[in-house]
Amino acid sequence: MLNDLIVVNMALAEGTCVPDLQKERAKCTFNKEEITNIMDGGEEKTQFRRRLENFFLSDPEFLDPIPPEYLSHEERYSNELRKACYMIRKFNEDEKVQQIVGEMEGIRTLMGSGLGVALTKDGNPLALHYVMFMPAILGQGTVEQQGLWLGRAWTGEIIGTYAQTEMGHGTFLRGLETTATYDPSTQEFVLHSPTITSTKWWPGGLGKTVNYAVVMAQLYTKGKCHGVHPFIVQLRDEETHESLPGVSVGEIGPRLGMNTNDNGFLRFKHYRIPRTNMLMKHSQVLEDGTYIKPANDKLAYGTMVFVRVAICFDSHRQLQRAVTIATRYSAVRHQSELKPGEPEPQILDYQTQQYKLLPQIATIFGIHFSARRVWDTYNEVTGNIHEGNLDLLPELHAISCGLKALSSSDASAGIEICRLACGGHGYLSSSNLPRIYTTTTAANTYEGENTVMWLQVARYIIKSYREARKGEKLCHSVSYLAAQPVSTHLSTNLSNEALVEAYKKAVSAIVSETAERLQKHCDQGEQFELAWNKCSVLLVKCAQAHTRYFTCEQFVENVESLELSEGVRNVLRRLCRLYLIYHISLNQGDFLRSQALSPENISTLEGEMCELLAVLRDDAVSLVDSFDIHDRILGSTLGCWDGNVYHRMFSEAQKSPMNQTDVPEAYSKYLRPLMKANL
Amino acid sequence: MLNDLIVVNMALAEGTCVPDLQKERAKCTFNKEEITNIMDGGEEKTQFRRRLENFFLSDPEFLDPIPPEYLSHEERYSNELRKACYMIRKFNEDEKVQQIVGEMEGIRTLMGSGLGVALTKDGNPLALHYVMFMPAILGQGTVEQQGLWLGRAWTGEIIGTYAQTEMGHGTFLRGLETTATYDPSTQEFVLHSPTITSTKWWPGGLGKTVNYAVVMAQLYTKGKCHGVHPFIVQLRDEETHESLPGVSVGEIGPRLGMNTNDNGFLRFKHYRIPRTNMLMKHSQVLEDGTYIKPANDKLAYGTMVFVRVAICFDSHRQLQRAVTIATRYSAVRHQSELKPGEPEPQILDYQTQQYKLLPQIATIFGIHFSARRVWDTYNEVTGNIHEGNLDLLPELHAISCGLKALSSSDASAGIEICRLACGGHGYLSSSNLPRIYTTTTAANTYEGENTVMWLQVARYIIKSYREARKGEKLCHSVSYLAAQPVSTHLSTNLSNEALVEAYKKAVSAIVSETAERLQKHCDQGEQFELAWNKCSVLLVKCAQAHTRYFTCEQFVENVESLELSEGVRNVLRRLCRLYLIYHISLNQGDFLRSQALSPENISTLEGEMCELLAVLRDDAVSLVDSFDIHDRILGSTLGCWDGNVYHRMFSEAQKSPMNQTDVPEAYSKYLRPLMKANL
Repeated sequence: MLNDLIVVNMALAEGTCVPDLQKERAKCTFNKEEITNIMDGGEEKTQFRRRLENFFLSDPEFLDPIPPEYLSHEERYSNELRKACYMIRKFNEDEKVQQIVGEMEGIRTLMGSGLGVALTKDGNPLALHYVMFMPAILGQGTVEQQGLWLGRAWTGEIIGTYAQTEMGHGTFLRGLETTATYDPSTQEFVLHSPTITSTKWWPGGLGKTVNYAVVMAQLYTKGKCHGVHPFIVQLRDEETHESLPGVSVGEIGPRLGMNTNDNGFLRFKHYRIPRTNMLMKHSQVLEDGTYIKPANDKLAYGTMVFVRVAICFDSHRQLQRAVTIATRYSAVRHQSELKPGEPEPQILDYQTQQYKLLPQIATIFGIHFSARRVWDTYNEVTGNIHEGNLDLLPELHAISCGLKALSSSDASAGIEICRLACGGHGYLSSSNLPRIYTTTTAANTYEGENTVMWLQVARYIIKSYREARKGEKLCHSVSYLAAQPVSTHLSTNLSNEALVEAYKKAVSAIVSETAERLQKHCDQGEQFELAWNKCSVLLVKCAQAHTRYFTCEQFVENVESLELSEGVRNVLRRLCRLYLIYHISLNQGDFLRSQALSPENISTLEGEMCELLAVLRDDAVSLVDSFDIHDRILGSTLGCWDGNVYHRMFSEAQKSPMNQTDVPEAYSKYLRPLMKANL
Repeated sequence: MLNDLIVVNMALAEGTCVPDLQKERAKCTFNKEEITNIMDGGEEKTQFRRRLENFFLSDPEFLDPIPPEYLSHEERYSNELRKACYMIRKFNEDEKVQQIVGEMEGIRTLMGSGLGVALTKDGNPLALHYVMFMPAILGQGTVEQQGLWLGRAWTGEIIGTYAQTEMGHGTFLRGLETTATYDPSTQEFVLHSPTITSTKWWPGGLGKTVNYAVVMAQLYTKGKCHGVHPFIVQLRDEETHESLPGVSVGEIGPRLGMNTNDNGFLRFKHYRIPRTNMLMKHSQVLEDGTYIKPANDKLAYGTMVFVRVAICFDSHRQLQRAVTIATRYSAVRHQSELKPGEPEPQILDYQTQQYKLLPQIATIFGIHFSARRVWDTYNEVTGNIHEGNLDLLPELHAISCGLKALSSSDASAGIEICRLACGGHGYLSSSNLPRIYTTTTAANTYEGENTVMWLQVARYIIKSYREARKGEKLCHSVSYLAAQPVSTHLSTNLSNEALVEAYKKAVSAIVSETAERLQKHCDQGEQFELAWNKCSVLLVKCAQAHTRYFTCEQFVENVESLELSEGVRNVLRRLCRLYLIYHISLNQGDFLRSQALSPENISTLEGEMCELLAVLRDDAVSLVDSFDIHDRILGSTLGCWDGNVYHRMFSEAQKSPMNQTDVPEAYSKYLRPLMKANL
């Protein structure tokens, strides 16, 4: 009975796509490949990415014999570790791969890429070895230390992670409790976990995989604490992989997602390591225990900016996946009635559905252009760091904090909208939307919790605002704070440039009202920090509005200044317009209170938004096609290129181990005794 | 090394709570028990609930030997089925339980209650037997059919579910494709699944558990289709549990959550059932195939209202759990600095944290009072149905649709806010926040997808608005639409009553603007349905604003009219005030555009909100205590009553099967060969 369906499925899966998607694709008004190249960062990079994807995805070793959701926690870990190890061996042993991927930067990129994520779906227990452990040695170790450890790490002889966060301490680095006390009599550091809250908690790979770690601990020498420093610490025996005496290490248990990351805990009991295991590129402890402090405290900023921009790109890639799935599904799914008596329409025809999907597509470009801008500025600034010019650092830090928070929250909210836009079927693991959400939402709290990020942005904004009031010159991204508020409505001009001006005016007004509130508290004699806390809900709002404005400006600038074909420019202009209006509509109070826009303006813009949705609807499928996401990376029954949704859902369900037998074991064990009890 | 920690844990777990929580509880300004009784629906019901909880939770059979997240998909199913069967046997066999629980309504209530949810965490494969299968027979079967099937269902001799949704058809009932064609020659119905999209998909328990189902299918007799009707269908052999020839049934695979619901698929291949298996209380097919239609089409409304109100109560119970966990954790967690140089404060002291948690507590009461109101009206109306008076039905239907959508979306959004408010630790399964979210978010799409719900509310609102314009009298909940808009600001009066008036005015303005837009499209010659679609984003907004207003009004009315002690009334008044202001602040554009409030009003209210957060902060822990959620039902390392967060997290992680050995099997299988490859 099932066989006939599966045969149909196979036949369809091989060939062309379903008529609904053919019809959509025929309507495309622009050159898809051009957008693909923009998102990849150039034509060559698109080619490189495709070569890499074909190479890895054609290898059957990366297939999961059984979808991981059916497996036990340990089986999942084991399966992902298998693939992670294979990936590295393939990389180490195959010249062709090395040619394609390049050197260390290559495998780091691979681990974090869309491809890497598809190969080890729920987290790669070896990822932090490349992404954090080796870079930490490179960035914080002396040349000798690099020579000693990097070679062994590179061949995989030792595998490490980066152990910073503790049970009781996350974002607030200074609060870490693990101690490293120098003992000059043996020239060793004594690592210790004095409390339950000092237990290292969360580092990926730490549970059962790594045998080394870079551990962040409070450095004590000569009776004085010098703050948090990095130490390279052996955790497990290199022969037996058994944890060493004085080290207690294990996994922290299951999570909402990323369950094969092997997140672990770690405790030390007066555990001794040689003095030379402190990573001493910046600070040093001499043999006698003398502490030598680093030349420049601000160097750590650079890595944080790098990581935060990387999160922006990650987040928008995840949102690309979700919106690709939901948009294709919306073109294939038919439901309900639009005109009475006519066949059920594609759900993409419903304005409410367009309103769920199209703003997400626009958001992807908004984040993309902004993150790229910060990325370019980052490269400019890191150039300057080596020349000692750190002027741009505070601005860059603020923008990267804001964009990290905005992109992770936009992406996770957008993914949930996409998931819910697929109705009940979006709840199925085989849609892959659950995994995309559970993976992406983690970025709201890691690498700087978002509320903390917003408050850092706010600190920069308020500081700039106060400087402007004193007549000082402001950095580019906040220069609008210096302008004098104009009190007339925009009334007629609603061009993109006028809307960006309206954004500036709205943010200015919120910032100035909040700054006044803050000042008022201070004037009443409150300590600045307490006054700050009493305004912090509004301060977060300032930061969010500022960062949104930044993305709007970047979007408009890029759409007008990039070299684009007419078709691409037109569709991007429409998306840009949608992005500007969508966020005005969501935050209309800000625009009305500041008189940046009038109620009539908002009504007009809402009308225009409805028209934009209708026009962009016809390009929706082509837009998500242009993200060029391989079916295997998409991993979704609902979102595949061919639109063969229902047959895929059905054949995916047939893979359930429970469907391999008609009657489950649990029947005779539990159900039958119950059912026959009263006979 | 670990042992000393575990000993500490045990010692602490037995006794008192941590000092931080003691301190919070000492500040309580009201009688907690009084609020507990309000939420339970009376003192007696609180006693009953506690008796029931103690009785079931003290039974070791309901413990999970290993937390389910570690198990394979089939092991989880098996474990929950074990507990589900045991629950019923305990119910059937133990007089004490029957005394406590009462008759059928009792076990139905138990299955759906907070307790039931705690006993079978990820879904009870037998729940739909009681919640849908038996009620369907009761509500749609003739007395003879009830006699034939209900007795056997009651003893558990047959186990059933309710099979309505299909792969291609969810909310739009008329689109169902499964056919039941009457064959008068044998007096049988022939059930058939003509397409892949007609596959029944999603019903709980259908996969491997049930042997019967009420199946909804298009009824054909004498060559004519009479729409969707219910049929009772045997799916599996009562002796062997094997699926019967012509029936193809299995499970649909893993999901974001509720993975032990045993959601299934079902296909028929010309499968014959006796004529008498059609449930014929309302419609009938006679032996010769003559169709007799039901006396009243509207009767099905009643059940839908019942189910939707039940979802409101479910959702707000889930939000109670999440906010209990996050609030207690926020009182125990210390982080960062408020005043430089002082110890890290409780994170509950941060205004941003208060802003995340306190509005959720307020929302719980907003939903509670509104759902209770609809519940009471429902009972009034169902009384009237039997007397033939259906006047209140359309209004009730609209409110229940709106509240279903509002409560499920408020609750799931609020739960995510609570989860993220716990930082990374909220991502741990042992916090139980992931499960609470994945369970609750499902309510956004099941039993009427939320966007569809909103548009049904909008249809009622627009209809009422048009009637008002014609001078017709409106039902109570929409009577404000008839009032003439007043164009002056409220300027000074910002009392609760004035704010509720502002809500009315704001909704009126949105509705009237949207109705005009709709009319304009129609005037331009567009078909009503297409014009409707072109306004549907705004129509959804009307529905949301209307439903929010309804909850505000209910909240204010209840806080003022209920018999309450002074302490309870004060704290509820503050919460009510917070609820009113919070939603004004989030939707300030609506209030400004309609001139219901001025920019100065909004500023004033924002200031008041900040003050409310600070005042309510001191009652936060006591408020969540008053929800009186048993630690076992909470099931959270972060949220337990004693606040012993870190030791619980640690000892919960020790339960991981992977932590039972130091070195995992996967090491020698995959990791060691990689690490030693280059030696």
